[in-house]
Amino acid sequence: MTDATNPDWLSTSILALQGAAKGGVGTLHELTEERQGRYHYTIGPYSDPVMTVRPGDRIKVWTQDCFEGRVKTEADKPSQVTEMPFINPQCGPIMVEGAEKGDAIAVYIETMEPRGENPRGTCCMIPEFGGLTGTIYTATLNDPLPEIVRKIDLDTENVFWSDRVTLPYKPHIGTIACSPELDSINSLTPDQHGGNMDMPDICPGNVLYLPVKVAGGRLFLGDCHACQGEGEVCGVAVEYPSITTIRVDLIKGWTLPWPRLETPDLIMSIGSARPLEDATRIAYRDLVYWMVDGYGFDKWDAYMMLSQCGKVKLGNFVDPKYTVGAAIEKKYLSV
Amino acid sequence: MTDATNPDWLSTSILALQGAAKGGVGTLHELTEERQGRYHYTIGPYSDPVMTVRPGDRIKVWTQDCFEGRVKTEADKPSQVTEMPFINPQCGPIMVEGAEKGDAIAVYIETMEPRGENPRGTCCMIPEFGGLTGTIYTATLNDPLPEIVRKIDLDTENVFWSDRVTLPYKPHIGTIACSPELDSINSLTPDQHGGNMDMPDICPGNVLYLPVKVAGGRLFLGDCHACQGEGEVCGVAVEYPSITTIRVDLIKGWTLPWPRLETPDLIMSIGSARPLEDATRIAYRDLVYWMVDGYGFDKWDAYMMLSQCGKVKLGNFVDPKYTVGAAIEKKYLSV
Amino acid sequence: MTDATNPDWLSTSILALQGAAKGGVGTLHELTEERQGRYHYTIGPYSDPVMTVRPGDRIKVWTQDCFEGRVKTEADKPSQVTEMPFINPQCGPIMVEGAEKGDAIAVYIETMEPRGENPRGTCCMIPEFGGLTGTIYTATLNDPLPEIVRKIDLDTENVFWSDRVTLPYKPHIGTIACSPELDSINSLTPDQHGGNMDMPDICPGNVLYLPVKVAGGRLFLGDCHACQGEGEVCGVAVEYPSITTIRVDLIKGWTLPWPRLETPDLIMSIGSARPLEDATRIAYRDLVYWMVDGYGFDKWDAYMMLSQCGKVKLGNFVDPKYTVGAAIEKKYLSV
Amino acid sequence: MTDATNPDWLSTSILALQGAAKGGVGTLHELTEERQGRYHYTIGPYSDPVMTVRPGDRIKVWTQDCFEGRVKTEADKPSQVTEMPFINPQCGPIMVEGAEKGDAIAVYIETMEPRGENPRGTCCMIPEFGGLTGTIYTATLNDPLPEIVRKIDLDTENVFWSDRVTLPYKPHIGTIACSPELDSINSLTPDQHGGNMDMPDICPGNVLYLPVKVAGGRLFLGDCHACQGEGEVCGVAVEYPSITTIRVDLIKGWTLPWPRLETPDLIMSIGSARPLEDATRIAYRDLVYWMVDGYGFDKWDAYMMLSQCGKVKLGNFVDPKYTVGAAIEKKYLSV
Repeated sequence: MTDATNPDWLSTSILALQGAAKGGVGTLHELTEERQGRYHYTIGPYSDPVMTVRPGDRIKVWTQDCFEGRVKTEADKPSQVTEMPFINPQCGPIMVEGAEKGDAIAVYIETMEPRGENPRGTCCMIPEFGGLTGTIYTATLNDPLPEIVRKIDLDTENVFWSDRVTLPYKPHIGTIACSPELDSINSLTPDQHGGNMDMPDICPGNVLYLPVKVAGGRLFLGDCHACQGEGEVCGVAVEYPSITTIRVDLIKGWTLPWPRLETPDLIMSIGSARPLEDATRIAYRDLVYWMVDGYGFDKWDAYMMLSQCGKVKLGNFVDPKYTVGAAIEKKYLSV
Repeated sequence: MTDATNPDWLSTSILALQGAAKGGVGTLHELTEERQGRYHYTIGPYSDPVMTVRPGDRIKVWTQDCFEGRVKTEADKPSQVTEMPFINPQCGPIMVEGAEKGDAIAVYIETMEPRGENPRGTCCMIPEFGGLTGTIYTATLNDPLPEIVRKIDLDTENVFWSDRVTLPYKPHIGTIACSPELDSINSLTPDQHGGNMDMPDICPGNVLYLPVKVAGGRLFLGDCHACQGEGEVCGVAVEYPSITTIRVDLIKGWTLPWPRLETPDLIMSIGSARPLEDATRIAYRDLVYWMVDGYGFDKWDAYMMLSQCGKVKLGNFVDPKYTVGAAIEKKYLSV
Repeated sequence: MTDATNPDWLSTSILALQGAAKGGVGTLHELTEERQGRYHYTIGPYSDPVMTVRPGDRIKVWTQDCFEGRVKTEADKPSQVTEMPFINPQCGPIMVEGAEKGDAIAVYIETMEPRGENPRGTCCMIPEFGGLTGTIYTATLNDPLPEIVRKIDLDTENVFWSDRVTLPYKPHIGTIACSPELDSINSLTPDQHGGNMDMPDICPGNVLYLPVKVAGGRLFLGDCHACQGEGEVCGVAVEYPSITTIRVDLIKGWTLPWPRLETPDLIMSIGSARPLEDATRIAYRDLVYWMVDGYGFDKWDAYMMLSQCGKVKLGNFVDPKYTVGAAIEKKYLSV
Repeated sequence: MTDATNPDWLSTSILALQGAAKGGVGTLHELTEERQGRYHYTIGPYSDPVMTVRPGDRIKVWTQDCFEGRVKTEADKPSQVTEMPFINPQCGPIMVEGAEKGDAIAVYIETMEPRGENPRGTCCMIPEFGGLTGTIYTATLNDPLPEIVRKIDLDTENVFWSDRVTLPYKPHIGTIACSPELDSINSLTPDQHGGNMDMPDICPGNVLYLPVKVAGGRLFLGDCHACQGEGEVCGVAVEYPSITTIRVDLIKGWTLPWPRLETPDLIMSIGSARPLEDATRIAYRDLVYWMVDGYGFDKWDAYMMLSQCGKVKLGNFVDPKYTVGAAIEKKYLSV
């Protein structure tokens, strides 16, 4: 049986081997709606912390969906019930004791569950947003696509997409980040700090490593998805309110240029940029550096070897920056 | 036991259901080096056919590696032993009886085997070519990366990358295309005709569908890889001479804007363009259209559903155009 | 004789015709180094205003160069004497009385003069920054270009580039913006708010219109250039400390999606995005809308006509977002 | 008075100083519709030459408009009266005596005149083509823009755009190229060979230099525009049939990676690629190299100096590849 709180593989992870908690599991906190109070639509150093935790502590986070629950029926148009830039509400900031600029915060995602009695997710087509439409950046004169809303029943096993199709429940965290040093970045944009990466691998069972730029790290998260395809092509996943339980740890002195991810089977570097090839370059370059610094590979050997066994996962190609993960299986890293 | 010549699933494929051969298997041809004579470095309507086959026929193609065998040792620099644009030699053109503009040619890849007594592959870093370097397009003033050649032993199970790492033998066809109507496109560039897609899924066991633009289709192929990572980040895979056995069929009146692929488990549309987001847009749009035309989905339902379960595979992001496949599992397509 | 404070053409400008000051010229303020105190490296709503002015008021702004004066000799490497993200210091924020979300602030640039006794500018090549090098986004494994610093004598007529070449003094403001609503954006990045556009036309004699998102507008500016080529190809202009005199006005209810510019001869929309074609699309689309809303053109007539007489100016293609202006001569706008 | 055949400045041009004709003017040829016979829609080495000329010779070319005259009235929809890929007909190929791979062919454009009794140009909006619309590459699901045709009266001074607007007649050659070595490239695509650059500076009075890849060079041209804005934003200029008179010369041993241009006042390198920043990088890098090789500048001095005085001209950002010219004024090149 797998123990989601502390699965076997985790004892060999960077989190366990290098984390300040030395693999130990601490106190469980709960970040309810009440405790959160107002949500944040921008990720930066200017908001008041909602709680402080210690390395190894666990937090049960009550996330809102990206529409903050305002799209209640299929008649509720996002363009009418929401207002930019008050979109994609984030929980936090959570302060991690001892975190300083130059460290990394590790987030192990234990579980994600739908919240509410009859849990439903929301998908929609939003005018001038998405992968197959003109947008405010890829600015065209075409009429926008129709604004269509779908409410989707779901449970912890299934997402009941339509009469015809049932999809598996495969939740992940769409937006998660520590704070930049001086900037405050809207919660729709991924960047070096993490943010709206929409990377399906940021899911239960895996560990995300985020660069720390300010004291305490200031961890934000939200925007959970009951499932999502690679690329999130229409711009919207099955958005739902969740109870997401994470364990937080602190890697002192591990200075990351971009977020990194660890799963039982692979390590992944995550880049966010436009155009999409730049996101891919960032991810692959960081992975080369990681193989050199963390696993003793020669730089050119790593580069050529990834050309034979590297894996690429597309997060989103619809947000203000696009997100790509470049990964290698751990079995090729052992000496 | 799987029969590579005609596996069970193939009887339910588009090739079998709509192909002119009605699932039948025809004559086996052999396209040896001798029969090929001169290779082609440009894919178009101006070269002389090497053979004509009928729908259902099989062809054993003796491909050259992309350096035409000129990189014999690790001391042979590609920049010295090869000369642009005489690179990436293609076998063919093979004419398919009955193929006309507006049809599709189906290529089922049966097997790929290394050629030669002590088979070895070649990988290298080529100046101003690859994903993590300035190139002739992403033109920079930086000094080029060093030119390094690796010769790699391999057999039908393993690619012996280094003392430290052995990779699995997972061959695929790097370059394969029918001819454009008027243009002749160098064998390094993928486009609507197919070409240098470097898509790992164009491998034994799968079926590729290519648009026909001229009578006979004029099928070219070459550039086989013993294995390749997603993105082919350094620009070069484990390049090797192969014996690649394909079965060719003809789908009359199936007019494809871009290549499409079918595997036992999924269908994939393949786009090639720059920037990389455009390749992704092309692939996903074509997949939406395919779901509508081929499987009866409503257009907006397909678009939103792919946002939940679409898969993306990166071919290359190093060639003159980048290649992306967008796919959906067949289990979601059944009525 | 031209009166820089109030040239003839200005009476026909949008600033004069629609500004709250009705073309009137108000009080002259001075924003010295002393009054400014600390500079800002991020443009947002979280900093303390340095002054409040009324529509029509003039302000003499003592700007710092983008290195805050730390590159004093050609031996001072920017990578050693500056520290990210404390780069490109901005003066302000200046509050404009009456400005509210949905308005536009007009900035007429009267004059720009070098500051200091023996005025010199600074140009340099910064590792992993610039148009013809790998960068942190266009991430490559090539060695960086050399870090070279040039100190350049200049006066109000000439920039003494080298023994061989003297360039004309053609100053402009590299970075200027009102605050976003919730975000705070580093001063290196241009976006909808304006920011580091590096557009040579934001120069003495012209009027820039900026969207207002928060009460008072919160105007920031800095990063003045004694001259700059289109694209700012090496990433750095002739950076210098200036005394820049502007007149500020307020257009109530003119809601701009992106910055706009007016000169004696043309109107220009300014977009900032990646890839560069998206910046161009943004600029041209906004110009079409401006021709429709402001000058009574039919949308398709405007679109096709710009295909015959539109002008494009490249600001920078080196910053985190690239900047493009699309313009049309005023002579084609009259009825 | 200016002599279009041989203006004063031309004696100091690269054409005159390094051309095989040593500034001499040779025979005048005429390439009429009759002599041309069939037009070409692809630029390559596989078509039959229409004439051979000597360096210094002049040619009066009767070009067709890009629709080959099929759009006769505003009721003729291009999508109905034309058929891909038979679009943008090219005159040629013209062979230049003595031209070999590694040389450059110089084309001085003397004059361009409208052809026909009541000369009219054609502009239109073509579905899924243009800068502000989804296209086959920037693939969207939006409905296409309306297909609108405009027929425009013009003479050698004016283009009578509308009741409201008259534009100046400023003709240029949209498509001009020598042949690639092995490929044949459709006449809609610009690339290293030249092609559909849509650069307004390829106009009467200027000299274009094109790389030679095959014996004789094989010069093609067509697609003349009575005027065109920068970027050609709707995808179509004022397309018209012309009589274009050029003088052709041959620079032996001048091996160009991309086309270059010379005017009385500046030199320009021309790059074509996607995304648009890559076209800009190509153009600027080639200009740096040109300043080094042709004018004795230090590489880093040239790079930093262009950051202060470089000029950028956008050709098209609507074709399969985008075109950018990077230029410097000649006055900064003298020693």
